[in-house]
Amino acid sequence: MTPRLCREGILKLRPYIPGKPIEEVQREYGLTDIIKLASNENPLGPSHKAVESMKSACERVGLYPDGSCFALRQAVAEHLGVEPDYLSFGAGSDECIHEIGVAFLEDGDDVVQADPTFSQYETAATLMECPCRMIPLNSYSYDVDAMADRITERTKLVFVANPNNPTGTMVTHTQVERLLDRLPERAILVLDEAYHEYNVDRPDFPKALPWVLEGRNIVLLRTFSKIYGLAGLRLGYAIAKPEIIRFMEQVRLPFNVNSVAQAGAIAALADQEHVEKSRKLNAEGKHYFYSEFDRLGLPYAPSDANFVWVDLKKDSRWVFGELLKRGVIIRTGDIFGCPTYARVTIGLPEENQRFIGALEEVLA
Amino acid sequence: MTPRLCREGILKLRPYIPGKPIEEVQREYGLTDIIKLASNENPLGPSHKAVESMKSACERVGLYPDGSCFALRQAVAEHLGVEPDYLSFGAGSDECIHEIGVAFLEDGDDVVQADPTFSQYETAATLMECPCRMIPLNSYSYDVDAMADRITERTKLVFVANPNNPTGTMVTHTQVERLLDRLPERAILVLDEAYHEYNVDRPDFPKALPWVLEGRNIVLLRTFSKIYGLAGLRLGYAIAKPEIIRFMEQVRLPFNVNSVAQAGAIAALADQEHVEKSRKLNAEGKHYFYSEFDRLGLPYAPSDANFVWVDLKKDSRWVFGELLKRGVIIRTGDIFGCPTYARVTIGLPEENQRFIGALEEVLA
Repeated sequence: MTPRLCREGILKLRPYIPGKPIEEVQREYGLTDIIKLASNENPLGPSHKAVESMKSACERVGLYPDGSCFALRQAVAEHLGVEPDYLSFGAGSDECIHEIGVAFLEDGDDVVQADPTFSQYETAATLMECPCRMIPLNSYSYDVDAMADRITERTKLVFVANPNNPTGTMVTHTQVERLLDRLPERAILVLDEAYHEYNVDRPDFPKALPWVLEGRNIVLLRTFSKIYGLAGLRLGYAIAKPEIIRFMEQVRLPFNVNSVAQAGAIAALADQEHVEKSRKLNAEGKHYFYSEFDRLGLPYAPSDANFVWVDLKKDSRWVFGELLKRGVIIRTGDIFGCPTYARVTIGLPEENQRFIGALEEVLA
Repeated sequence: MTPRLCREGILKLRPYIPGKPIEEVQREYGLTDIIKLASNENPLGPSHKAVESMKSACERVGLYPDGSCFALRQAVAEHLGVEPDYLSFGAGSDECIHEIGVAFLEDGDDVVQADPTFSQYETAATLMECPCRMIPLNSYSYDVDAMADRITERTKLVFVANPNNPTGTMVTHTQVERLLDRLPERAILVLDEAYHEYNVDRPDFPKALPWVLEGRNIVLLRTFSKIYGLAGLRLGYAIAKPEIIRFMEQVRLPFNVNSVAQAGAIAALADQEHVEKSRKLNAEGKHYFYSEFDRLGLPYAPSDANFVWVDLKKDSRWVFGELLKRGVIIRTGDIFGCPTYARVTIGLPEENQRFIGALEEVLA
């Protein structure tokens, strides 16, 4: 018998199933005109100013990136109004999530999270061989009281995706505060705000920065992959007090953020007009989806993000396959344990219309 | 007393000290004309064709990268003559090194490596709380017999940087074979060939691919950061049998390689003329360094890479500081435990001359 080569703990990992890339559908179906509403990207892409800055950075990729992200750190610190040592950058916020696992989880710790939610929290816990306590959503939303009740002295990390992925629903300021107040002394609340910028106008959306500045054990995660349109370049970051950031910095790879991403993010951050335009387009698309799903009699979760979680009332893998033939990629709910649901990214108006047209045809 | 927030194991991590970035020297010394011979980058940078391809990819960074690196995988597989499932890509080969640690190291395992060598092997072991057995170099070279003698039933990973960093010296085919033959059944030899392309003409440089294809427990690491000139974009890869690759793929982040790097690497790989030109330039610069070090009476290790390890016969931190004032960045040996040594990257002819001129001035 061959001896086991790998670490036993990793055998429990559930592989990540990514949104299907456009090139893959092109190869498999021989189609050319394909739209992807599967991975919650900004359909406008990044600011043109960011693209120019990235192209210029491509001239200098022979050198290693600045491992400390000096200029980017200054720019983000100024944008947020925090000191630079409150930040740690990752190759996507999913790298930050893994670093949090590696930096903070040890034998005997457990993790509390919702179910379904973004898969990388469970992956980070599993890599460190710590159990995840999964608290089912209450209809589409976090059951914050059940989560709070599940926190024990062994709990080291509590993950809250706000808004949640895949449902798009939000946890309010007072709800997060309730969780924070229930944390044992050495536990940390991770508030993943990947879709934060879509919620700047919501009065009940958590104002989380003051908690960080007060010295609470909280990590905020933000990303340049969503409204900033830099998903392809991999850049996210954590905001926390320096006592927490220090350990994340200690476990990260020395050159984890590439130099083109650093250049692009600085320019993207400076173009808030593009962010505003993206936010407005998203709001319009969301209301279009709502009215069309209402018309088609499909239940959905009102969304605080750039996607809508909708009950197709059929096997969503089948619907997915039929839509693929029509050049439309969405995300099926089965990966989140909800086989009749789908998560659909809000695209450009013409993409949204094409999706609705194709869906109506498939469901007819 | 505040309870310990972080995992106990990470307190042992030695922070990585990167080569000083040019921008940092500009800020600190108010200089504009600075050359960096500190991080073993290709002074020519990447192929112009790669730069064009990357700029074009910058137009599409709104979408997530292909997590499976489909096109890049095909290109590298074809270039090497292996099947695509023999490859795993990382954001730099240092990410592959960390993945190997996470995938394979567990309680009770140990790691065998040389001292000094590339720091990330020890980091990967420390992150998994496994001890590193450090085998001192014999003069500038690996003491392969001492390494083989240190391998026990508990040894899970043996790291060989070939050529070694920081000394630039090579381990031969028969030496690696001797190590391979001494591995216990569940152990893996990691052969880090970051500078592989500088040695294609050396008859005794290991021909390692056949070992992979024979099913031996060996992982080869290659990178696009050195001769291919893409250090800023973070891209390296592992070559191993699918039984090993599978576990590396299982622990890697879903979108670890950015899309601009994927596009750039495909184009860089296709431009072997640029690789040949870079190799030739490096060989010339190396011999220039040899003759100048001889003239200055400074001992050095003959190099099989794109840098030279030289004994400055003075405190290299002091020399480093003096060179900085003259706008020349090198790497000091103290980080490798050799306080009078320096590692100097072979640059463009004018850079090499400027370094030698400045060094002569400082040492006078």
